[in-house]
Amino acid sequence: MNAENMIEIINKKRNKMQLSKEELKYAVMGYVNGEIPDYQMSALLMAICLNGMSDEETFNLTEIMYNSGDHLDLSDIKGFKIDKHSTGGVGDKTTLLLAPIVASLGVKVPKMSGRGLGHTGGTIDKLESIPGFKVSLTMDEFKKQLNEVGAVITGQTANLVPADKKIYALRDVTGTVSSIPLIASSIMSKKLASGADKILIDLKVGNGALVKTMKDAKKLAELMVKIGKKHKHDTICVLTNMSEPLGNNIGNALEVLEAIELLKGNVHNDLYDLIVYMASYMVSLGKNIKIEDAKKEVIETIKNGKAYDKFLEMVKAQGGDITKIKVAPKIFSIKSNKAGYINTINTEGLGEIVKEIGGGRETKDDVIDYGVGIVLSKKVGDHVDKEEEILKIYVDKKDMEIRRILSCFTIEEKKKSKEPLIYDVIM
Amino acid sequence: MNAENMIEIINKKRNKMQLSKEELKYAVMGYVNGEIPDYQMSALLMAICLNGMSDEETFNLTEIMYNSGDHLDLSDIKGFKIDKHSTGGVGDKTTLLLAPIVASLGVKVPKMSGRGLGHTGGTIDKLESIPGFKVSLTMDEFKKQLNEVGAVITGQTANLVPADKKIYALRDVTGTVSSIPLIASSIMSKKLASGADKILIDLKVGNGALVKTMKDAKKLAELMVKIGKKHKHDTICVLTNMSEPLGNNIGNALEVLEAIELLKGNVHNDLYDLIVYMASYMVSLGKNIKIEDAKKEVIETIKNGKAYDKFLEMVKAQGGDITKIKVAPKIFSIKSNKAGYINTINTEGLGEIVKEIGGGRETKDDVIDYGVGIVLSKKVGDHVDKEEEILKIYVDKKDMEIRRILSCFTIEEKKKSKEPLIYDVIM
Repeated sequence: MNAENMIEIINKKRNKMQLSKEELKYAVMGYVNGEIPDYQMSALLMAICLNGMSDEETFNLTEIMYNSGDHLDLSDIKGFKIDKHSTGGVGDKTTLLLAPIVASLGVKVPKMSGRGLGHTGGTIDKLESIPGFKVSLTMDEFKKQLNEVGAVITGQTANLVPADKKIYALRDVTGTVSSIPLIASSIMSKKLASGADKILIDLKVGNGALVKTMKDAKKLAELMVKIGKKHKHDTICVLTNMSEPLGNNIGNALEVLEAIELLKGNVHNDLYDLIVYMASYMVSLGKNIKIEDAKKEVIETIKNGKAYDKFLEMVKAQGGDITKIKVAPKIFSIKSNKAGYINTINTEGLGEIVKEIGGGRETKDDVIDYGVGIVLSKKVGDHVDKEEEILKIYVDKKDMEIRRILSCFTIEEKKKSKEPLIYDVIM
Repeated sequence: MNAENMIEIINKKRNKMQLSKEELKYAVMGYVNGEIPDYQMSALLMAICLNGMSDEETFNLTEIMYNSGDHLDLSDIKGFKIDKHSTGGVGDKTTLLLAPIVASLGVKVPKMSGRGLGHTGGTIDKLESIPGFKVSLTMDEFKKQLNEVGAVITGQTANLVPADKKIYALRDVTGTVSSIPLIASSIMSKKLASGADKILIDLKVGNGALVKTMKDAKKLAELMVKIGKKHKHDTICVLTNMSEPLGNNIGNALEVLEAIELLKGNVHNDLYDLIVYMASYMVSLGKNIKIEDAKKEVIETIKNGKAYDKFLEMVKAQGGDITKIKVAPKIFSIKSNKAGYINTINTEGLGEIVKEIGGGRETKDDVIDYGVGIVLSKKVGDHVDKEEEILKIYVDKKDMEIRRILSCFTIEEKKKSKEPLIYDVIM
């Protein structure tokens, strides 16, 4: 009976039919409980990838995953709590910055983060490059720090949305990651279970992101906003540019160092612009004030050092020591082999390079080399002379071919118009 | 590297791209060797089901599967050898009949058959209902009998097309059976490895068959004929009606008994018509004579008892004793609850019923009850009175609801025109 039912469910989706809530529950919970094997679930996931899901199916799938484990109850924490999520990109250290900036203005940021996956880094790995930093808090520690410091970042606890955990791992190895309804239900089930009042999502679009086109990004954003509304959790999606790395540093320790410099007021690149934009939305929502007023507060809290103080307070609360952060011992300056304007950067390519020199994992069990990475001297739109430095690469045990690094850059005589940093806001 | 490559192959097919021969080989042979897990193969199979394969991909897949194991070499057997294959249906006992009929006219029939799958029975299970019948011959026994008797039927040896064996088992449990390129490469790789000179395929179409529509059947037939040509093995596909059971008996022993009665000259139903048609094609190909002349020979060899003698010779050679065939002890007459014409029979439904009363397997390990089954008193187009017998059911340990049996028949006042037995021949 069991296997026959799952086969019928697969057949329905293969024949482009809608699955009922009961059928989705049977498949998802059967898989979580180990009654349905991997190979049947992956066939269903591929059928969903290719034949899609209706909004109703996506709502139901989100709810089933949301209910597959515990829900975080933050109702006993005073004040407004806002969660942020990024769909992931290269050089994306926004969480490290937004949590202290927003908390320094009185809005609480309870954040559960993940590890790196594929060519994109993960906030938890970045934090672990700070010696001593504790990334596995108990629920009591998490709540206590949220109450007292206002900003807390921890790895996801095991029993929050176990269905997504198991299905995500399978999607990752079966070519079934890039399905809009599957991405939407995966993100939203986790965000809803995390107990914040409102949710801000940084949806990255471009060659370094999971979502490559604006059309797909808009569909995904609209779907997530709809799911949020259905669960009475206002959700705002900011569609941002990931066709070049965010900021200048890629690699765990190097990204923490760039975040620290920004909080000290020393960084004014695209990362700074994005941080101010996102933080303003979070503060505006949390304090129920106009976005322009929130923006002024955000700029001020960075300028007067309060955001940096909050960062230090958060790191201290979690046991970290930023004076002990180490970067890789060998630093090479990579120089351009021609003159011109940098018109494109293969962002995924750079992410892969940093992963391969030790900054990320090929398999779940690999140990990360926190100090390795890349610091860009030039970004899209910049001019570079022949023999001028394009980037510095920080390596330790593994080297990288210079030709392969340079092949990630398109350098042309004529400057192309640059894409905006923020494409759209959907709410 | 390994997993990443398979993921890239899955991604290509998900994105509707063609797979190269190397990529298909990597996936298929990696799966056969146990390097690629079930869950990745099932995702690829679903992507193939939904995005299809080009003719070139199908040719390559067939060749890779064909080369995954041994090839049967029958070149040292004298005379012309023709293989036949049926895509499977309910009440399909054609192999039991065609092998002796055609062999009695001097054309050799080397036949490897399978066990029942889903709602359709398998020739090997049918033969095992003859006490003593040996279905696992060694290669030497197989060749010796082919040489001396001219007709031989055995279970497939383990090392013939192991790739198809493993992939077929996975398709069966992942809703990925009904893909035309996958069906074509599965059938043709096995037929090509079996060493016959030419191949006749009985492609069943209708509610009791794997292929439900004429459009799909024609596509599949054309593809198989093309694959055969590519390998210089002429292939003829006969598209036949499977919207009612073939003949009157369903169930292992009951089907053998119907075959025996036909060979004795006592059966002249649709089964007889189909057998004469198919045998004529096989004899015409094997002796290189006109189809009309072959037909005369076929009718004569049944009439004069030579075909029956050949059947007895084949059964004796394989150790069987037809005097010991047993049917189930409890026989119930099922009567119509209304008068009218039988306009449709849910053939798959009747196949399922016979399976459930013990005539087939729910799982690979189930033991078959050879004596159970159904004998139809009425077929499509027949008139039935209220309380007149529609069928007899032979049961032993498990019973069946009368209402469920009758629900497989549509009985109406007005007679609908009957579909032909043979739809088309593609060669």
